[in-house]
Amino acid sequence: MRENILGLECVLADGTVAKCGTRALKSSAGYDLTSLMTGSEGTLGIITNVTVKLHPIPNHVMAAVCVFEDLFQAAEAVAAVKLCGVPVARCELLDESSVAAFNQYNQSKKENNHLEPMQVKPTLFLEFHGASASAVEEQASLTEFVCTRDYGGSNFQFTADEAERKELWSARHNLYYASLALRSGARANDALLTDACVPLSKFAELISSTAKDVKDLGVIGPCFGHAGDGNFHCILPVLEGDSEEYISNLHRVNDNLIRRTLDAGGTCTGEHGVGYGKIKYLEPQYGPGGVHMMKLIKLAMDPLNIMNPGKIVIL
Amino acid sequence: MRENILGLECVLADGTVAKCGTRALKSSAGYDLTSLMTGSEGTLGIITNVTVKLHPIPNHVMAAVCVFEDLFQAAEAVAAVKLCGVPVARCELLDESSVAAFNQYNQSKKENNHLEPMQVKPTLFLEFHGASASAVEEQASLTEFVCTRDYGGSNFQFTADEAERKELWSARHNLYYASLALRSGARANDALLTDACVPLSKFAELISSTAKDVKDLGVIGPCFGHAGDGNFHCILPVLEGDSEEYISNLHRVNDNLIRRTLDAGGTCTGEHGVGYGKIKYLEPQYGPGGVHMMKLIKLAMDPLNIMNPGKIVIL
Repeated sequence: MRENILGLECVLADGTVAKCGTRALKSSAGYDLTSLMTGSEGTLGIITNVTVKLHPIPNHVMAAVCVFEDLFQAAEAVAAVKLCGVPVARCELLDESSVAAFNQYNQSKKENNHLEPMQVKPTLFLEFHGASASAVEEQASLTEFVCTRDYGGSNFQFTADEAERKELWSARHNLYYASLALRSGARANDALLTDACVPLSKFAELISSTAKDVKDLGVIGPCFGHAGDGNFHCILPVLEGDSEEYISNLHRVNDNLIRRTLDAGGTCTGEHGVGYGKIKYLEPQYGPGGVHMMKLIKLAMDPLNIMNPGKIVIL
Repeated sequence: MRENILGLECVLADGTVAKCGTRALKSSAGYDLTSLMTGSEGTLGIITNVTVKLHPIPNHVMAAVCVFEDLFQAAEAVAAVKLCGVPVARCELLDESSVAAFNQYNQSKKENNHLEPMQVKPTLFLEFHGASASAVEEQASLTEFVCTRDYGGSNFQFTADEAERKELWSARHNLYYASLALRSGARANDALLTDACVPLSKFAELISSTAKDVKDLGVIGPCFGHAGDGNFHCILPVLEGDSEEYISNLHRVNDNLIRRTLDAGGTCTGEHGVGYGKIKYLEPQYGPGGVHMMKLIKLAMDPLNIMNPGKIVIL
């Protein structure tokens, strides 16, 4: 989202109404206040107006699915496809456990239960956009070639049918709830939810070692995410009656994930934000200097600490 | 450039070494300090280290040139091509005066004087990148179709030959000096140089009315630029002996340009920065609130005003 925000208006703690950015696609007129405010979680001011980039609806769209024997290989395939210069529009990777959750959830929903269950293997969901049918076909066939020739991908299927595409993505968008449903009784907010993002070159290692931790520690935790960005989520549902050991194993999955993420030069949150919960990771991630700089800015913009206090930085 | 910077390290006025950003493609871990520092022109700290995105070298590249009868139409063609979803990799628009400067300069340079002089008409220089030859050919032919069918473009020529492409772009990169050379005796820094950037929907109106001002006021001022971004430069060479009237006409071109840019929701500088010269435009562009916010940040980060003082904000 961040890269689609051109400008905004915000109200600062001292009552100033500040215009940030312009409607132009680029600018070097002073400090980039738009990016500073975007993702500041209300701690620097209240955003009252946003100017976003508009993108044309693509003339041609194709969705594809590819199945892999191995999660590491599936993630490596994504990096390889991107390095070939294929402009993949969407790219989601599901581990085995996510595919199982996906199947089970679809079967339980009247509107989805005609969907053929998928093979329970690491799976890529892809989407290609283009100005012509041949452009998207070519992107799809190049992707198929890379995935199946070099990374053990198989059963590459694609469709340009809009209803089929929408159904596939809508099922993908229910994956959070499908993951919770793997543990009967888990409620909407009852999960430890991770959001690491690492350089693409480290993504395969991170997601596969996390999936291995989940398996070795005997917990439920589907891993899936935005593979093209190096970002994924591990959903670890919690039940009220869970044993101390089970809860401690969930935290071990998360702690290992954060450690590996920071070692890889990544971030503890790719898109969800810091809130209260991730403040403790900012200093390990940026060092004391980066956190000091955030505090200087917070203090200058909100000296009385009245804007969403306690989030991102503690004064 | 801004969108290619993932992270950086900087030294603040108080001596703090701050790490900003990560190596991941996206992050929402606290304030976006990387964007804040990028383009801050040394006024908030000194950047000592930068982490940039790497892009694969495209497998296939094609350069193209298209000539138009009318500058407004040429600029509108760019917006139309982008709206068709063609991922144009480079897109430069030259007005008649720029093409004349280009021809004259090439003839005067031994290494370029074999280049065929171009028709002195508004001209688009384009470049297409793709994973396959057919992908770039299709982008080029769709662009040709839009330019020639709807916007009066003609003489659309393309080449995939690397040497020809490099020659074309290297000649384009000399346009600043070619423009100066239109006024014999102008030296490298002796020009009023504009850098407006507006929404694509306003670009045709802005560049064509600026070129008209240049003509009507009888000054030399080739207009050319990054049409795909809505950004262009008007190069107005100044000579030591210029009359007061001539100089005042140059400033009129610039003043009109800035007024129209701000009316269009654009920015007074797309890529060159503020320095001393454009401080006066920041309040008209952002209003007092935006400038106040920049001052709060400057004061917090550099209370003694020792970091490149006098640029961007005046404390």
